[in-house]
Amino acid sequence: MFRKFLPHNSDFFGLFNKIADCSVEAAELFKQATLEGKIDDATVQRMEAIEHRGDETTYAVIAKLNKTFITPFDREDIHALAKELDDVIDVINAMVGKLRTYKLSGVNKNLVDFALLIDESVKSLACAVKGLNNMKNSQEILATCVDLNHKEDLGDSMRDKSIAELFESETNPINVIKWKEIYEDAETVLDICEDVANVIEAIIVKQA
Amino acid sequence: MFRKFLPHNSDFFGLFNKIADCSVEAAELFKQATLEGKIDDATVQRMEAIEHRGDETTYAVIAKLNKTFITPFDREDIHALAKELDDVIDVINAMVGKLRTYKLSGVNKNLVDFALLIDESVKSLACAVKGLNNMKNSQEILATCVDLNHKEDLGDSMRDKSIAELFESETNPINVIKWKEIYEDAETVLDICEDVANVIEAIIVKQA
Amino acid sequence: MFRKFLPHNSDFFGLFNKIADCSVEAAELFKQATLEGKIDDATVQRMEAIEHRGDETTYAVIAKLNKTFITPFDREDIHALAKELDDVIDVINAMVGKLRTYKLSGVNKNLVDFALLIDESVKSLACAVKGLNNMKNSQEILATCVDLNHKEDLGDSMRDKSIAELFESETNPINVIKWKEIYEDAETVLDICEDVANVIEAIIVKQA
Repeated sequence: MFRKFLPHNSDFFGLFNKIADCSVEAAELFKQATLEGKIDDATVQRMEAIEHRGDETTYAVIAKLNKTFITPFDREDIHALAKELDDVIDVINAMVGKLRTYKLSGVNKNLVDFALLIDESVKSLACAVKGLNNMKNSQEILATCVDLNHKEDLGDSMRDKSIAELFESETNPINVIKWKEIYEDAETVLDICEDVANVIEAIIVKQA
Repeated sequence: MFRKFLPHNSDFFGLFNKIADCSVEAAELFKQATLEGKIDDATVQRMEAIEHRGDETTYAVIAKLNKTFITPFDREDIHALAKELDDVIDVINAMVGKLRTYKLSGVNKNLVDFALLIDESVKSLACAVKGLNNMKNSQEILATCVDLNHKEDLGDSMRDKSIAELFESETNPINVIKWKEIYEDAETVLDICEDVANVIEAIIVKQA
Repeated sequence: MFRKFLPHNSDFFGLFNKIADCSVEAAELFKQATLEGKIDDATVQRMEAIEHRGDETTYAVIAKLNKTFITPFDREDIHALAKELDDVIDVINAMVGKLRTYKLSGVNKNLVDFALLIDESVKSLACAVKGLNNMKNSQEILATCVDLNHKEDLGDSMRDKSIAELFESETNPINVIKWKEIYEDAETVLDICEDVANVIEAIIVKQA
């Protein structure tokens, strides 16, 4: 009868880890596709499968949150953590969809740089998320969060530089529109990684 | 003296219904204008009047929320419900404004498809909002929320297809810029409908 | 030992005032640069220094919030106030960066109008923020908040008019893309000012 009030904290951590794993898979697949300079049907389908798994797991977190009385962290932090980690996957998936729909093929050096930075950031972020289960590593996690803030700054410069180059060298306005959107999306992924890092930081500080 | 602490729940529901009615009016007017393929002064003025009424009612919800001690649902859910339902109206109003300002006239088949889907979604959403007054229908409301999630997926595909067509067939880059923005706004309306559905779902699950 | 539970309210107000001062500096610098019609290295560096100070102060508010048990207002209002006031500075800084990166020089009358309105709005907003320390002026602060809502409406019209003019008179699509983004950013600054005003209004109403 009181089952719904008991803290199944381990389940929350299990679900967070699952979304974190999906985000790592998405970043990895995006990196591969970008290095190859082409997005085929198989890549689009694999990415959509990852995104779908991410959605379902996020949905499970929120459903669990709405039914659970005692939670391991503040409710709004759990909600934000799941939602924004899932947003990382959504935006990567959207980029892959656009590269395909907009017929943008060929290796783009600036996008490769973004994909490498996104891959690094998402892997750091996944480590930080997984560390939340054990607060003994909190100093290490906080250092990762600071690093994710620096990577977001780097992403800002990358976007500015990439768009400036585009305006200088691309003469077809339609291509400018397409690539500008892709670069902005890439930077958005790093923005969201920073947002997740800020949530993680808040969780650790509140428990100190 | 204690008047402000008493739960005037019926007033909250009355205000929600009023915003929901405004959103249905806005979607209906947008559908008509899109089917006719022209936005005249009268349409712009009618839409702005609806938007103004939506704003005022949302303002009334938030003012009431700030003064009320006991509320029928979680405070943040009430705030999100009113705010996001009002955002539906704001984005529809913005689209009508842009169609006029950008001088985009003529029937656009893709936009008609969007307007029909928006009209359906907003009507479902309004039913779900009005159902919150009586939790006996909660299963039916939850089914509507699931359906609104599917409609948002459909909206994503519509936007991708519409923008892909635009890139393929429209040779004037200025027109590409204009229509791309309209399609993105149309999809945003469906995104917000899904967000409202998620809030409704949370309200129901928490009360179960 | 109980030090962390004591309300150092004065510190919160001091930090809010500091972010408000940064936003006034940013708006002032943006106005000057816009009136001169050129952004030199010194301007970019000064703006980045302001933005950096704003970031650090916002970070201090959130760090303090996470460690403080009793706060002068609702926690989410403190968080939103600092975060959104900082967003005002971020978007102004981003605009300056883009004007430089996109090589948009020369006095642009529409942007000057925006810069003047932003300068007025940010100064009003800073007064309202500073007034929160003393609730005796609450009627005056509420009047300022209403005025900031009107200024945002004015900003909407300015953006629509500016973009319409751009579509009519600018024949280079790349320039259309660049300026459209600047005008939208300018309007976003006024949107965020209105959001901050709404938070201030909520703080006052809850304390009434």
